[in-house]
Amino acid sequence: MYDYKKLENFCKNVFMSIGCSEEDASLAAEVLISADLRGVDSHGVARLIGYVRLWEKDRINPKPNIKVIHETPSTAVVDADKALGLVAAPKVMDIAMEKAEKAGTCWISVKNSNHFGIAGYHAMKALSKDMIGMAMTNASPLVSPTFSKERLLGTNPIAVAIPSGNEAPFVADFATTTVANGKLEILQRKNENAPEGWVQDRDGKPTTNASAVKEGGALLPLGGDRVHGSHKGYCLGSVVDIFSAVLSGAGYGPWAPPFVSFLPLPEKPVGEGLGHFFGVMRIDAFRPADEFKQHMDNWISRFKSAEPIEGEERVLIPGEPETEMEIERKEKGIPLLPPVIKDLKTLADKFGIKI
Amino acid sequence: MYDYKKLENFCKNVFMSIGCSEEDASLAAEVLISADLRGVDSHGVARLIGYVRLWEKDRINPKPNIKVIHETPSTAVVDADKALGLVAAPKVMDIAMEKAEKAGTCWISVKNSNHFGIAGYHAMKALSKDMIGMAMTNASPLVSPTFSKERLLGTNPIAVAIPSGNEAPFVADFATTTVANGKLEILQRKNENAPEGWVQDRDGKPTTNASAVKEGGALLPLGGDRVHGSHKGYCLGSVVDIFSAVLSGAGYGPWAPPFVSFLPLPEKPVGEGLGHFFGVMRIDAFRPADEFKQHMDNWISRFKSAEPIEGEERVLIPGEPETEMEIERKEKGIPLLPPVIKDLKTLADKFGIKI
Repeated sequence: MYDYKKLENFCKNVFMSIGCSEEDASLAAEVLISADLRGVDSHGVARLIGYVRLWEKDRINPKPNIKVIHETPSTAVVDADKALGLVAAPKVMDIAMEKAEKAGTCWISVKNSNHFGIAGYHAMKALSKDMIGMAMTNASPLVSPTFSKERLLGTNPIAVAIPSGNEAPFVADFATTTVANGKLEILQRKNENAPEGWVQDRDGKPTTNASAVKEGGALLPLGGDRVHGSHKGYCLGSVVDIFSAVLSGAGYGPWAPPFVSFLPLPEKPVGEGLGHFFGVMRIDAFRPADEFKQHMDNWISRFKSAEPIEGEERVLIPGEPETEMEIERKEKGIPLLPPVIKDLKTLADKFGIKI
Repeated sequence: MYDYKKLENFCKNVFMSIGCSEEDASLAAEVLISADLRGVDSHGVARLIGYVRLWEKDRINPKPNIKVIHETPSTAVVDADKALGLVAAPKVMDIAMEKAEKAGTCWISVKNSNHFGIAGYHAMKALSKDMIGMAMTNASPLVSPTFSKERLLGTNPIAVAIPSGNEAPFVADFATTTVANGKLEILQRKNENAPEGWVQDRDGKPTTNASAVKEGGALLPLGGDRVHGSHKGYCLGSVVDIFSAVLSGAGYGPWAPPFVSFLPLPEKPVGEGLGHFFGVMRIDAFRPADEFKQHMDNWISRFKSAEPIEGEERVLIPGEPETEMEIERKEKGIPLLPPVIKDLKTLADKFGIKI
């Protein structure tokens, strides 16, 4: 088990080593570790070496000039100038919250960015100001639309954070696929099969091979197949792609730049970098915040107390398992798998940082 | 086959018979028939008698005073005054589009309303103004959250309509469950089983009984079960419920008023009527509309031309089958099932209208 503060400090040093300012490096490290704390291990320190490799390929600018290039009272478009998404996203959320103070809401589409870690972190920034926060991003094309053999969409996550009173806040944060890629990687390591409905093979046929995506297959949109509503997951992933990348001018669909540095950037790009979309709504732009939060507490406690089906202990509220995990891991530390530890050692050696 | 204009006129006469103004009755009839035209038969004239029954129970006000009760530059809350949702929704979209002209976007939460027909109709209103339109609504509690035996959510649909250039627009419109209730009703009539993952029985156990919901069971959130991501469908349905009803002050979760008039209204209501949520974003609040629409055409044609899996003809764009259906049914007419025809005759007799 690794102490999260030490891990965070290590990440900060790595980000400073690639040229980030101390402020940006702290921010990026905090976002990254928040994934490990909340139990989304695939998006935390396990990805640190990936960001460094992108920097080595000159695909990340450690000293970006993140700026608003167009705006109305309730919208903006931001050019992230090839920043780490981990740095661009929270800065854009700050802009959105400031603009929402006046206009009631604010919606910002971002181009020329990179992978931004977990969407939930960014959405949750709005909570302390009694605002609803939303964050989404497009991503490397690994997902086939319903009936498609080709991979045209990313796992394109959506996060929505909603303030509550005494209860823990409502935080939805999910990929628009049946399953996140990280869960497949776990099965690969264990040499286990995937359940039906998670992936298809390179010929577009259903398969339980957990390595199918690596072998040219694809993740499936939420729903899995047409009978179970995969066209709805395809709709959701598409909306995230369009809001994040077509609205901003980033690379969309199959032209989204891949996260892994060994894959080439798309030929004939249709936009710049990866795209994100953020939304912020002031609660009191609709009704008094205290009144709303009382009703949210009522909503949450009603759902929590629903009678569970046989074999299950209780009905969970979105965000509840992650909040519990965060409390536990802050106390007991973060478990890391051997390949992740190896990667961190590689980085420590490379930059001469103590681990 | 029934001519859609004659059907629409019949619906208009029925709405006028319950006391709607000619203008409101025309609007309601147009919204209702748009469902039949687009192939969403469960939400069209098949529901006409249901609205009349709600009016008989004094749950619909045919002469509503639909008004904004709170607003900021980019938001509003509307009290629909027990209006037909079919009338309230398009009027609220008009308010949203007007406010978005100045603020860039507008987001309106509506309380004290009723069933609004198909979400897609309302979202699509924004298209002609080069705006993105969104519409969602909560609904009668027929859906069990993941791990819940109880029904706490409605099928809570989401519609997103996005303008394009030469291609038909992108129109996503889907219930946040594996399947809409209407599809189960079709299976019941045919005496066929439902696929696994659509419903659970009254004890919360998976079942293929297509009548399970009528027998105290529940529809399942998109994903079907935990392994296939039903917690994501549960998140989506919850967000729709909260945006539509907790933000506005309508009845949320299990307190949402049921559509069928024979079920009682919830005891100790937590809000007024049903809730909706609408959003409108001006394209040029982000980038020039022509530029955006060119890229949308490129997005659509790339997805359309994706190589299909074996046994399928092509990859569909959200909204494409509905657009094709509309063209066909405008020409050839709308097919109606015998029980629907019987209901329409009942209404014709009741109000002395020629069918």
